[in-house]
Amino acid sequence: MAGSTLGTIFRISTWGESHGKAIGVVIDGCPAGLDLSEEDIQPFLNRRKPGQSVFSTPRSEDDAVELLSGVFEGKTTGTPISMIVYNKTQQSKDYSEIASYYRPGHADYTFDAKYGFRDYRGGGRSSGRETTARVAAGAVAIKILNQLGITFTTYTKSIGPIEIDYSKFDANEIFNNKLYMPDSDAAEKAGEYVIQMTKEHDSVGGCVEAIVKGVPAGLGDTVFEKLDANLAKAIMSIGAVKSVEIGDGNHVAYMLGSEDNDGFCMTEDNTIQKTSNHAGGILGGMSDGSDIILRASFKATPSILKAQQTVNKSNENIEVSIKGRHDPIVVPRAVVVVEAMTAITILDALLLNMTATMDSIQQFYK
Amino acid sequence: MAGSTLGTIFRISTWGESHGKAIGVVIDGCPAGLDLSEEDIQPFLNRRKPGQSVFSTPRSEDDAVELLSGVFEGKTTGTPISMIVYNKTQQSKDYSEIASYYRPGHADYTFDAKYGFRDYRGGGRSSGRETTARVAAGAVAIKILNQLGITFTTYTKSIGPIEIDYSKFDANEIFNNKLYMPDSDAAEKAGEYVIQMTKEHDSVGGCVEAIVKGVPAGLGDTVFEKLDANLAKAIMSIGAVKSVEIGDGNHVAYMLGSEDNDGFCMTEDNTIQKTSNHAGGILGGMSDGSDIILRASFKATPSILKAQQTVNKSNENIEVSIKGRHDPIVVPRAVVVVEAMTAITILDALLLNMTATMDSIQQFYK
Amino acid sequence: MAGSTLGTIFRISTWGESHGKAIGVVIDGCPAGLDLSEEDIQPFLNRRKPGQSVFSTPRSEDDAVELLSGVFEGKTTGTPISMIVYNKTQQSKDYSEIASYYRPGHADYTFDAKYGFRDYRGGGRSSGRETTARVAAGAVAIKILNQLGITFTTYTKSIGPIEIDYSKFDANEIFNNKLYMPDSDAAEKAGEYVIQMTKEHDSVGGCVEAIVKGVPAGLGDTVFEKLDANLAKAIMSIGAVKSVEIGDGNHVAYMLGSEDNDGFCMTEDNTIQKTSNHAGGILGGMSDGSDIILRASFKATPSILKAQQTVNKSNENIEVSIKGRHDPIVVPRAVVVVEAMTAITILDALLLNMTATMDSIQQFYK
Amino acid sequence: MAGSTLGTIFRISTWGESHGKAIGVVIDGCPAGLDLSEEDIQPFLNRRKPGQSVFSTPRSEDDAVELLSGVFEGKTTGTPISMIVYNKTQQSKDYSEIASYYRPGHADYTFDAKYGFRDYRGGGRSSGRETTARVAAGAVAIKILNQLGITFTTYTKSIGPIEIDYSKFDANEIFNNKLYMPDSDAAEKAGEYVIQMTKEHDSVGGCVEAIVKGVPAGLGDTVFEKLDANLAKAIMSIGAVKSVEIGDGNHVAYMLGSEDNDGFCMTEDNTIQKTSNHAGGILGGMSDGSDIILRASFKATPSILKAQQTVNKSNENIEVSIKGRHDPIVVPRAVVVVEAMTAITILDALLLNMTATMDSIQQFYK
Repeated sequence: MAGSTLGTIFRISTWGESHGKAIGVVIDGCPAGLDLSEEDIQPFLNRRKPGQSVFSTPRSEDDAVELLSGVFEGKTTGTPISMIVYNKTQQSKDYSEIASYYRPGHADYTFDAKYGFRDYRGGGRSSGRETTARVAAGAVAIKILNQLGITFTTYTKSIGPIEIDYSKFDANEIFNNKLYMPDSDAAEKAGEYVIQMTKEHDSVGGCVEAIVKGVPAGLGDTVFEKLDANLAKAIMSIGAVKSVEIGDGNHVAYMLGSEDNDGFCMTEDNTIQKTSNHAGGILGGMSDGSDIILRASFKATPSILKAQQTVNKSNENIEVSIKGRHDPIVVPRAVVVVEAMTAITILDALLLNMTATMDSIQQFYK
Repeated sequence: MAGSTLGTIFRISTWGESHGKAIGVVIDGCPAGLDLSEEDIQPFLNRRKPGQSVFSTPRSEDDAVELLSGVFEGKTTGTPISMIVYNKTQQSKDYSEIASYYRPGHADYTFDAKYGFRDYRGGGRSSGRETTARVAAGAVAIKILNQLGITFTTYTKSIGPIEIDYSKFDANEIFNNKLYMPDSDAAEKAGEYVIQMTKEHDSVGGCVEAIVKGVPAGLGDTVFEKLDANLAKAIMSIGAVKSVEIGDGNHVAYMLGSEDNDGFCMTEDNTIQKTSNHAGGILGGMSDGSDIILRASFKATPSILKAQQTVNKSNENIEVSIKGRHDPIVVPRAVVVVEAMTAITILDALLLNMTATMDSIQQFYK
Repeated sequence: MAGSTLGTIFRISTWGESHGKAIGVVIDGCPAGLDLSEEDIQPFLNRRKPGQSVFSTPRSEDDAVELLSGVFEGKTTGTPISMIVYNKTQQSKDYSEIASYYRPGHADYTFDAKYGFRDYRGGGRSSGRETTARVAAGAVAIKILNQLGITFTTYTKSIGPIEIDYSKFDANEIFNNKLYMPDSDAAEKAGEYVIQMTKEHDSVGGCVEAIVKGVPAGLGDTVFEKLDANLAKAIMSIGAVKSVEIGDGNHVAYMLGSEDNDGFCMTEDNTIQKTSNHAGGILGGMSDGSDIILRASFKATPSILKAQQTVNKSNENIEVSIKGRHDPIVVPRAVVVVEAMTAITILDALLLNMTATMDSIQQFYK
Repeated sequence: MAGSTLGTIFRISTWGESHGKAIGVVIDGCPAGLDLSEEDIQPFLNRRKPGQSVFSTPRSEDDAVELLSGVFEGKTTGTPISMIVYNKTQQSKDYSEIASYYRPGHADYTFDAKYGFRDYRGGGRSSGRETTARVAAGAVAIKILNQLGITFTTYTKSIGPIEIDYSKFDANEIFNNKLYMPDSDAAEKAGEYVIQMTKEHDSVGGCVEAIVKGVPAGLGDTVFEKLDANLAKAIMSIGAVKSVEIGDGNHVAYMLGSEDNDGFCMTEDNTIQKTSNHAGGILGGMSDGSDIILRASFKATPSILKAQQTVNKSNENIEVSIKGRHDPIVVPRAVVVVEAMTAITILDALLLNMTATMDSIQQFYK
């Protein structure tokens, strides 16, 4: 069954395994005429590449992206954009042991249940390394959206029990610390927490939040292709995510209508805006012109040194301690993945929206 | 843009407005040979139909479903199943006033932003009434899944601040109270709370939880078509949902790897099972054989009598008090909608999974 | 498996059996703001409805279409348009005999092979009656395209050995004869031929041609979503079609490059046009601004009185003579079906094309 | 707009330009457990690679395919299979002149009309070189189908006025001549014809036919996803194809029902078979168990030395004579492309068919 393609008009197909020759993505449906080169993509890949700090796996990949098609004389041509990143430091020997049992919290068991066997080298296709391809595609989507005045602020909201203090929120700080938190104090405490838990042979979860500014009102649809529905799918499709929230998210279950509803008012320049943004920028499945706000909760890295109970290939109960090059926390490197998936989803909705009315069609073809 | 179709193999297309002539659904891809009649569908529609208690709108619809195609001599034929429910008590006059302003928390503003105008009668296509069609389709999916030993327990987990006590969990109780709570004490308190808030001209949010038993391991996919990703989309596409959680959901952000991971062990009959179910039955995007557990947080009904700030058609700031026939809380009637969307998603994954291996293909075509 | 949905943005889903309660179609993705009522649809249904002449089945259906959703105050709202046509004169008794054997040239055998049984009443879902729904959807597509200056001329090119003479081509004549031929002499001869063959208990094939004027250049795509590829699918999906040709069609196999290529030249008003149109308006999968020309070859109606060899339910070789209300030729009623499928395909390509360039996106969202 | 992806379950996405760095394909949805290596793919690519005879372009590419993902320890894993072929002898200088005008019969004009500019190097994405990727994917589909007993015989039926004589049909001969004709006499005459026309600075069209044996009955669908409809799309999506025929194809327009219908009879081993195969193995959109027979008519290579009229970038009427490395006829190299597209389409239908009945579902999940 096919499962590595996403999107209707701006459509991405990723491929590749953690320890295969390469990973990559094909973007089909990128509009023609966009200035594009590897330099537009690489900075995004650098935000997620491994080996950059004590908070990520020591596996060192330069993750250099190469554009193979779809660009001519520096501009996209409207044809598929193929991008490739070669895997350089796959140490397959590291993974020989884990072929013999099911790692708790990983896809090992379900992969075997579905397919009868699996590529056990570093999780194969289920590895977080697959998100490299998503980020490459997301970089293209973000470049397009930026040209339309749409911007992204994505960051670590919390790590374990340490949350950012919104009164200290500083977007510039996000790239100043290795945890991508917009609050230096929280980042410091969170860093200590991660180090401490790593010492205890454990791993840590956290939450990523994205704020998207400048999205025009009306993107999305009324029923199944709601913008928030597609965002939920895109974000939940990132490994380790167990919850997706829009706006006030799961707090709405505890709120009254009078607390939750956003009123409308006229601005000084005679446009309509909301008086608050509990809805996170989406009403009835369509963007409402205010900031889109979403959150993803990530579970802790499942690979831990601490002993865990599992079953081996001989169907014996065993205890395992997972060694190898693992992130103690996936959240910091996942920040840019959340941003990428959000952008890909919004861009597709933005393109689909262009065909919504007879007026726009007649305008285009006059 | 098309947005009312969902699914790859078991594919549903809903249509209809709150105050149009009828609403309906076409199921394309239902397997042939299923015994099916209106009697299989109606009980599910009855669970969500209005006018059944003080907790729902007094609008009274019998919501009688009629099967128009796809069934011959009592069995599905493999061709599209068209089902229709006529709207009987549309009081369009109730809605004449709301055409003149944007109701806070509704899709009024975004619909106008997208299309330039809207069907303002009862929310039109954005009405919760659209979910009637989803429930009809869900009833078919549930019947198929039941025949494969897959069962659903869906209920109200919380209403405002009142949550169920899992130590008192009684599945039989769910249909004993009008709030569909599996804990009679909580149901009583929640009922009082809703009545009190209604008296205060306000409305109430809550949380729905679904538990699915008997799902075989291996359904879903590794990347974008993860089972949890598609569940997130399906559930988030229900109006008023602002958060979707799988298993431990947003709590995972606070948990350690050692707390969150589910171990594996051998059962007495020599099969592999998990030692816990923090994952909510899905690992790496594929079902793991344990119960699938998900939650949806619903915001309070946006239509409230309490005064709210908004803007009218003359671009004036006004205060409005929404009258008409509204539910004080959407949660109880949404329980069966969550169940339907969950079933539709799981069935589609179950069908797609049949083509995953050469072995199964050779077995089928031998 | 789902198979009754077509299109990406302008997407139609048909449903219904020949002898069920009704047949219908849901159009998802129709742009908002189109004036639409039953009066726009009915004339197209009248062109294919049965019982109008000696050349079609005496089954008499008024085929009155009813709009159930998607239109508010006379305009489309952007939400799904559901249309229904009730079956009024299903004489199911006519078909009791044919349940007992496989009719040559029909889907009886393949339906049983796939599903294990079939709705044998008048062919069930495989009946030409299904095309009623396509025509209803096509009427909407044609109305939209007409507003953009795109027009359709569709007609019977040949019936058995009698072809139209292009030197006598008269578009006004198409609706003057019951065979929809643009040449009255050919129509007269063809009519006599059909009557003669009917007397001989046989049936007749023929060819339908469509010419579409005003299609802007650039619709379609370079690879799989070529405009001609999608037209081929749409036309071949009409029952009884065994060949689809674009432009010079199967003659190109015999032509030289110098005969087949269309040159380009400047027009007096300084636009580029082709010097000929062997390509039928499509180059490299994209419309080239000249007339789109396509042809579909229809086999003779498979139901004939003449004795044919087949097999019955007891696996005995038998001879059958098919009685009942059948068209002696499907071509005349199929003309509007070809037009409908052509329009639906072109409209979808036209909508998709709006998102092809950064310029058009920036223009739309400025 | 996205247009380079085809298929529902076995889904291929091609990418790459004639004179870019490479071309490739991602197969998403290939079943797990298939033995696969480059050796399975390369022979198919060799059938279409250039430079093999006087009948094809002298451009010499070794077209060596590399498998980048989706295979582990020699078996497919169920994850995307990425294949790449590097372009080695792109002589972009050859194409500098053609940037200045529209080549008749090519996609130059329509590409510019759609996107505003084009990659003019060798046709860019519109080059026949794109079909390399299709053939690589087709090789995988054919390997799977072969394991199910489904086999392909694809060949050149005619070149210009020279057709094969079916009484001399010899499948073994197909690979004995460079024109892939199953009749050595016809091949010899056709070869002379092509050489003569090349001398006259012209090019030649022709027809490819495919026969598929062993396809089980019941593949395909009743309405839009008819097997013949999808074959028509797949084949028409090959550049230069202007006609697709199934079975008796466009001859059916001239045939009577009694001539065209295939009867049924019992075989000696008590199975049902048809008494003839005018239908080409497809009835009512579904395979009927007999050979699937289809034909594609290819126009002559549009690039010819003979002078042609066109327009240059300064909007001047000019005459052009196309030089460069061109095939005098596309048909021989297109034979394997037709086979590939046929196989890809049949495999997808075969996988979809597995979910058609409750019986098969219950069998699978028991």
